[in-house]
Amino acid sequence: MTWRGTRGITLAELRQDIVTGQWVVVATARAMRPTDFSAPCYTPEAETGDCPFCPGNETMTPLELVALRAEDTEPDAPGWQVRVVPNRFPAFEPGEKAKPSSGIFPRRPAEGSHEVIIHTPEHGKSLASMSVEEVSMVLGVYRDRYLLNREDPDVRYIHIIVNHGRESGASIEHSHSQLFGMPLVPPLVQQELAGASWRSTREGSCVFCDIISEEARAGVRVIRESDEFVAIAPFASRFPFEVWIVPRTHQESFDLITGPQIWDFASVLRDVLGRYHMRFSDPPYNYFIHSAPCDGSRYPYYHWHLEMIPRLTVPGAMELGTSMWINITTPEHAADYLTGKVDQGL
Amino acid sequence: MTWRGTRGITLAELRQDIVTGQWVVVATARAMRPTDFSAPCYTPEAETGDCPFCPGNETMTPLELVALRAEDTEPDAPGWQVRVVPNRFPAFEPGEKAKPSSGIFPRRPAEGSHEVIIHTPEHGKSLASMSVEEVSMVLGVYRDRYLLNREDPDVRYIHIIVNHGRESGASIEHSHSQLFGMPLVPPLVQQELAGASWRSTREGSCVFCDIISEEARAGVRVIRESDEFVAIAPFASRFPFEVWIVPRTHQESFDLITGPQIWDFASVLRDVLGRYHMRFSDPPYNYFIHSAPCDGSRYPYYHWHLEMIPRLTVPGAMELGTSMWINITTPEHAADYLTGKVDQGL
Repeated sequence: MTWRGTRGITLAELRQDIVTGQWVVVATARAMRPTDFSAPCYTPEAETGDCPFCPGNETMTPLELVALRAEDTEPDAPGWQVRVVPNRFPAFEPGEKAKPSSGIFPRRPAEGSHEVIIHTPEHGKSLASMSVEEVSMVLGVYRDRYLLNREDPDVRYIHIIVNHGRESGASIEHSHSQLFGMPLVPPLVQQELAGASWRSTREGSCVFCDIISEEARAGVRVIRESDEFVAIAPFASRFPFEVWIVPRTHQESFDLITGPQIWDFASVLRDVLGRYHMRFSDPPYNYFIHSAPCDGSRYPYYHWHLEMIPRLTVPGAMELGTSMWINITTPEHAADYLTGKVDQGL
Repeated sequence: MTWRGTRGITLAELRQDIVTGQWVVVATARAMRPTDFSAPCYTPEAETGDCPFCPGNETMTPLELVALRAEDTEPDAPGWQVRVVPNRFPAFEPGEKAKPSSGIFPRRPAEGSHEVIIHTPEHGKSLASMSVEEVSMVLGVYRDRYLLNREDPDVRYIHIIVNHGRESGASIEHSHSQLFGMPLVPPLVQQELAGASWRSTREGSCVFCDIISEEARAGVRVIRESDEFVAIAPFASRFPFEVWIVPRTHQESFDLITGPQIWDFASVLRDVLGRYHMRFSDPPYNYFIHSAPCDGSRYPYYHWHLEMIPRLTVPGAMELGTSMWINITTPEHAADYLTGKVDQGL
């Protein structure tokens, strides 16, 4: 289905995200525009000797919260495979209780937690080059930290993320995740909850279950299907080559993931990251898990999932000023490129 | 007012934007974190001979819509000072009428308009190096195009922006603005409208008028005051060194700006851009105008303004995954640095 513009060319398309209700502009012609600016180049990265996440440098981080380590090794010393520490430069941390101030300038302390999960002792390794077993150990730690942080009464939402590469917002190269234990449910999750609740009330179904079954039927945006997970290029992708990984089982919260699901999740996650790596030679990317809040309420209509974004374009004043996104690649093309059906990328 | 964390250090702070209701994390400790990544370097930019916005290259753009040009010169030829053309790679353009489709994959044509306003014939000039008179000519063209586009029944919101420099999302170096005539009111503007409406109903006042009077009283976030405008670092800034320029006169829509106001606006805009230029040596930046929709309704409680963001940091999976922002600089510090009261920047 296409629409013709008065200049005789196909119009760009607005697509609505059925979960949040937000519209995205899919304007593929914009991929063709010339640019004055060359791609950036970078000088060599820091030596691993200075890396606070490398074995031997454990004193450069706060004391470890937990680690998967060889039995005969000490905390805060080498011998670990996955290591969790408080973020040394936290956005949220435990602290004084205070009510928000009122008036025109409301403020409150940023209570909560902010942890770093170091994926591997090897400085040069990334999730895309780790084994499925290694990735599943990281995901198991996600679950453990999720379960622990949700017991904190200050934490109402847990946001687990990866920033990979400078243009993703990362500051440290050594492969790691961050867990934000937030004292409020953030806006984008609130929007998803509202959309999921609305559909549940109106249609009696889960919007994410509906999406994966409709995507399987449509067949044009599916990147990978496993026993437990489906990876798709979402219909109203905000970013070129955005991918969602959604569990087939309806689970409101990430911490409900089972052992066999973790293994399967690791294999699908690594598969998609491998496709990014191959197609865009180790691009900067972000991923994050959207899950039900842990604020004491139940969200039976919600369905956790992971969203992944390679950082191939830079948002401008359109996106920052409207919260509406222009995507220069259709998700159908993204799926075709990531599954090897076509060879022309961005 | 500060809060103490359990580690004995001052906690980061949550600040609420009284207009949108959204919370921002102000976490200044994060400015101190080390980075493995060097600043990017760039190879020299394109020759001006290839620039579609330079005089002599007028045939490289679609036919001009209007231009401020010397009386004896022809359209689409040199002799202009400010030139307006349709975007050659449009996100929105006039076209076929169609109802949105329904179901789980709703879509509709991206009807509307997308114009480019070329600020100057001189390739090397930017708004910061133009005279107040030259900037006021650009702003006068904004008003003219705004008035014209609002007559288009397909256009329900007009978004005028500048992307300056590669890391702002710009693709062309030659100084220019873009006007998006959008077929819907975008989410961020909807949030501001809802907040302004709520405050008007509850307090009987305009939230933006209240903000500028409270900011004048507080005196710690004011960057520049003129007869007609106030430039502030907003209390809940999402970005380091974010600045808003707000008219003192309560006007719902940008096209209500008067001739004398345009001159004054040009002088304040140029002043703030000059401060960015001096403090961050020509940083990439974005600005955009927020104004009432032109959808046939009245929005007497709204108050147009300009928002400006230097692109000094890169948003990561926290921001993209939650729509909640971490700002590593307080707006009080931003105001002090931009007004020369302190010399330590980011």
